[in-house]
Amino acid sequence: MKKILVVGLGLIGGSLAMALQGFEDFEVVGAVRSQSTYDKAAARRAADRLTFDPAAELPGADVVVLCQDPAGIIGFLQEHRDRFKPGCLIWDVCGVKTAMMEAAKCLPDGADFIGCHPMAGKEVSGIDNAEATLFRNTHFIVTPGPRSTREHLDLLRRMAEHCRFGDVIETTPERHDEMIAYTSQLMHVIAVSVCDNDELFSCQGFEGGSFRDCTRVAALDPAMWTQLFILNAPALSRIAAQLEERIHQYRTAIEAGDREALNAMLARASGRKKQINLERARGDDVRPSF
Amino acid sequence: MKKILVVGLGLIGGSLAMALQGFEDFEVVGAVRSQSTYDKAAARRAADRLTFDPAAELPGADVVVLCQDPAGIIGFLQEHRDRFKPGCLIWDVCGVKTAMMEAAKCLPDGADFIGCHPMAGKEVSGIDNAEATLFRNTHFIVTPGPRSTREHLDLLRRMAEHCRFGDVIETTPERHDEMIAYTSQLMHVIAVSVCDNDELFSCQGFEGGSFRDCTRVAALDPAMWTQLFILNAPALSRIAAQLEERIHQYRTAIEAGDREALNAMLARASGRKKQINLERARGDDVRPSF
Repeated sequence: MKKILVVGLGLIGGSLAMALQGFEDFEVVGAVRSQSTYDKAAARRAADRLTFDPAAELPGADVVVLCQDPAGIIGFLQEHRDRFKPGCLIWDVCGVKTAMMEAAKCLPDGADFIGCHPMAGKEVSGIDNAEATLFRNTHFIVTPGPRSTREHLDLLRRMAEHCRFGDVIETTPERHDEMIAYTSQLMHVIAVSVCDNDELFSCQGFEGGSFRDCTRVAALDPAMWTQLFILNAPALSRIAAQLEERIHQYRTAIEAGDREALNAMLARASGRKKQINLERARGDDVRPSF
Repeated sequence: MKKILVVGLGLIGGSLAMALQGFEDFEVVGAVRSQSTYDKAAARRAADRLTFDPAAELPGADVVVLCQDPAGIIGFLQEHRDRFKPGCLIWDVCGVKTAMMEAAKCLPDGADFIGCHPMAGKEVSGIDNAEATLFRNTHFIVTPGPRSTREHLDLLRRMAEHCRFGDVIETTPERHDEMIAYTSQLMHVIAVSVCDNDELFSCQGFEGGSFRDCTRVAALDPAMWTQLFILNAPALSRIAAQLEERIHQYRTAIEAGDREALNAMLARASGRKKQINLERARGDDVRPSF
């Protein structure tokens, strides 16, 4: 029997360990650090087997999935670089990819590191909130390294299919980080910026769906998002500056009472959004790529 | 039998006419302008009776509900000011209230205008998308005028209850406009600003729930939102400037790689959001006020 070692059983790692059980002829081993997580993972049968000692499992692991926070993944690669099984596949789940591909350069030639980003999540964290169905119909983004083999990419696709991801998107780490700065990190910057307003506690009774939707992700884990933002600073900073500029343009038109300019800006942006909605309805966007 | 005249059967007016049917001993009459809306409203039985001539109905209408766009409501009040039945209740559904209360000053003493804002909506408009259930569990905000009677406020609450609103919030027009600038108008400014980025069409495959949620309301009606933004320019401009400033603070910390400052900002904002979520879960926020 082959072995998948999932390191870190938080929300994503715990959910992956659950979703990966029963995949082909692999045993799923979950590595935890605290007794509390061990007990919860055991009670929920989050993995086929649990361990406190990932180092002891590494020489026999055909697949290693790194699910710690960004600093934890980077530290693990450095600390255990010589313990990985030659020819194994290593993948991570971190929301930034350039920095992870960079960190993986410390690995010996025989270890194939493929950056991954399961675009699933919740506003709550930890094994308590993990579930095998977390990944259904979400994107699984993959950034292969220069030495990644077709065999490993195929294996990764089969694992993604087993976890019921909606599709697998293969791209470069740089492109991933630019896109994610726009589609995910900026949404978190917006949500916390909106919540950091004096009116947050006085506006109750006046919120509609748009306010709840926009602020939902503000209940984030500060330590993890500090890491993610700083590891992707150039791309995030660029896109945040563009947003500031756009909001400023709207504000200028509103303050000037310039109906014509405002109407033109709103027509342009809403037209773009309607076009995207139409394309989605027609199914022109992402197709499952299995 | 008494009479409610609903003027304008778009998404909100059409839904209100549907939801109000069967209210006490009132007949619901819907006033439309186009044959196309007439036919659709007739086919869907959107009202007990339909008319192209609201002026002819006004002298016999005990309640008049103005559901046009903002300029349409202001124009209607001015054009028909002397046709309203003495002692009648007039209410509107516009998303800004100070400007509407101001416009209603043209009415004679016997007409009681109460500003209203049903906080319900969709990203699509028109009678085609109207439905009687649109208002369930949403906020119904009410800004009484200086001459509003207790009897009319009670009548309005009973209508809101009949339409299954979640609660009725009574406030001043000024407070309404400040709150709505934050909880609704700003969310629309954010959504269009995010969509007006070159990456919108290239980011497909990288969007998670936060992107879909934040941009949902960008598919707006440009003409109507131009009116709403300009009618509430001072409050919206103030809150948009605060958002620009907050995003700029995040960007500055990210560009400087200042982990400590960034972590402190994220901890503060996410803590506020978590507190709000907890209060909601405990039911400390808005209670149905029937």
